[in-house]
Amino acid sequence: MRRGEAVTLRQVASHAGVSRQTVSNVLNAPERVEPATLAKVQAAIEALGYQPSRTARSLATRQAGLIGYGLARQAGHSLFMDPFLHAMTESIEQTGRHVLLFTAPPGHLGLQTYADLIAQRAVDAFVVSDTVDHDPRHAWLAERGVPFASFGRAWPKDGDQPGPWVDVDGARACARLAAGLHAEGHTRIGFVGWQAPTSAGSDRQRGWRAECERLGLDEHECVAVSAEVDSIEGGARAAAELLDSAVPPTAIVGVSDLLAVGVLNEVRRRGLRAGRDIWVTGFDDSVLAASIGLTSVRQPIAELAATVVSLLDTPYEDRGVLLPGELVLRGSAPLNSGTR
Amino acid sequence: MRRGEAVTLRQVASHAGVSRQTVSNVLNAPERVEPATLAKVQAAIEALGYQPSRTARSLATRQAGLIGYGLARQAGHSLFMDPFLHAMTESIEQTGRHVLLFTAPPGHLGLQTYADLIAQRAVDAFVVSDTVDHDPRHAWLAERGVPFASFGRAWPKDGDQPGPWVDVDGARACARLAAGLHAEGHTRIGFVGWQAPTSAGSDRQRGWRAECERLGLDEHECVAVSAEVDSIEGGARAAAELLDSAVPPTAIVGVSDLLAVGVLNEVRRRGLRAGRDIWVTGFDDSVLAASIGLTSVRQPIAELAATVVSLLDTPYEDRGVLLPGELVLRGSAPLNSGTR
Repeated sequence: MRRGEAVTLRQVASHAGVSRQTVSNVLNAPERVEPATLAKVQAAIEALGYQPSRTARSLATRQAGLIGYGLARQAGHSLFMDPFLHAMTESIEQTGRHVLLFTAPPGHLGLQTYADLIAQRAVDAFVVSDTVDHDPRHAWLAERGVPFASFGRAWPKDGDQPGPWVDVDGARACARLAAGLHAEGHTRIGFVGWQAPTSAGSDRQRGWRAECERLGLDEHECVAVSAEVDSIEGGARAAAELLDSAVPPTAIVGVSDLLAVGVLNEVRRRGLRAGRDIWVTGFDDSVLAASIGLTSVRQPIAELAATVVSLLDTPYEDRGVLLPGELVLRGSAPLNSGTR
Repeated sequence: MRRGEAVTLRQVASHAGVSRQTVSNVLNAPERVEPATLAKVQAAIEALGYQPSRTARSLATRQAGLIGYGLARQAGHSLFMDPFLHAMTESIEQTGRHVLLFTAPPGHLGLQTYADLIAQRAVDAFVVSDTVDHDPRHAWLAERGVPFASFGRAWPKDGDQPGPWVDVDGARACARLAAGLHAEGHTRIGFVGWQAPTSAGSDRQRGWRAECERLGLDEHECVAVSAEVDSIEGGARAAAELLDSAVPPTAIVGVSDLLAVGVLNEVRRRGLRAGRDIWVTGFDDSVLAASIGLTSVRQPIAELAATVVSLLDTPYEDRGVLLPGELVLRGSAPLNSGTR
């Protein structure tokens, strides 16, 4: 950066005929400065085009002006998480701050990265996402008094969710899918989930299971299978396991679009027709879902991002916001549009 | 952050029995400190668990420790750009720095955002991507002596590419696709491109066109159509235009996976079989391509990210690195695996 040409605070003070401390007060505590002096210094700042460096301002305000966001070091979810990152970055910028992006391994191993950023005072707060069951980050940050807000719940063992959070009601969305499929005559509704202990996946599966029970469906005819990996191939293998069983399902609820695409591929490979012989649904309404006519659940990305950023700036308290997902109906599961 | 508990530089100085300036020298210019003193201060730093704040260190080193990366405020490319962002963040972390993520509108409008970050000294350098034809950022940054490296070329009007860059040879990849299709007997090879003036799209189209000319193919039988938007629907409309012409193509090269999926949808809608009646190729080898058996071009993401970061730290000079794309052959265009 061309620092040599930058106007200095000393030049502003000289131009306004005040001390450097007075200029500093105008920048960081204008309420302490008399109106006439304030106007004089502000005129000098404008005349010289002075812009304080972020570093100098950080020392004065004790704020880095940055919100930390850790990318999960894993593939798979990025079809949905990256649009969220775009929306969140814009929401944070609307508050005059930027995003400090970093990567961290999942679980306890990742805490060292958070500790380093805190020790360096590199960020003012964190947005936590890609949460997993018993995610250690929320309690760890809360114990240290570090401001944060979470997109997604940590599902701690004791049921006490630390810190503010926003999430999509995945359980409710999957219950609505099961109810809609039942209304179309399906009684054997399978589920393809993740093997990895992600909070969102367990939540979605619980919603499907609870609705099947509420409808009085036979639990031996509504079976869940876990895919080893969140991939198209993983979804195809899980679907094969369901379809090879003694009482194969006539509908399959997938925990993600990626797995549901694998289910669709396996359905087609067997010469069956999706949306007729077997109904299939996904989750996330990614570009994948639109491309192949997959019924899916859309997460309200812009509202999730705006909410998580607003939670950062509310007084520190444990509060959660649950937003509904929107069913997007397509040919793979042509549900009645009145499905709620 | 709990600053009250942090160990201060003053405490380190007191513990080591040296001045605060000496501790500062140890942190920021250890070559100026005598070995015995260095060892003594380092022992005190370790004993007390002292970590200098990033802000204090920034003032001392005049480095923010952050590399700026602007997200394009547009949808579409994210299927490929977001994996690049993950890889780049990891590459930058390996150099002990982090990413400052921001959004900026395309073109000249976006320069104000770069100017603000420079004025605040918020970043040490920029990684520029999502480049468009005549992208103003490269020349603008180079004129101001701001360090940067670009993923993608700016294709300036005068042909002089400012600053270091890395890119994938899209022209060569599309020429190889055209040659491979011709080797399989195709003589009417269409192209579906972007209407927006993206550098990458024009480059790919030039490669396809040059190879068709080299092969002596009739230019009225090898036609390019631009999709209004980079979407599945845009690709389908462009394909319909090609297939409705007097001499419809038997193969279509798509400038992106998203458009190619639209082409495939239109092919299927007409009862034609992809990879038999009409051969179709995409670009990026996104998860979309794998899910529907689309022949595509894979960009070497990890190598691109590592290269752009290494270019940041080389002495400032105009140099470019062109990496080859890899043809990934699938059912939509079952080219001979010897295709080069």
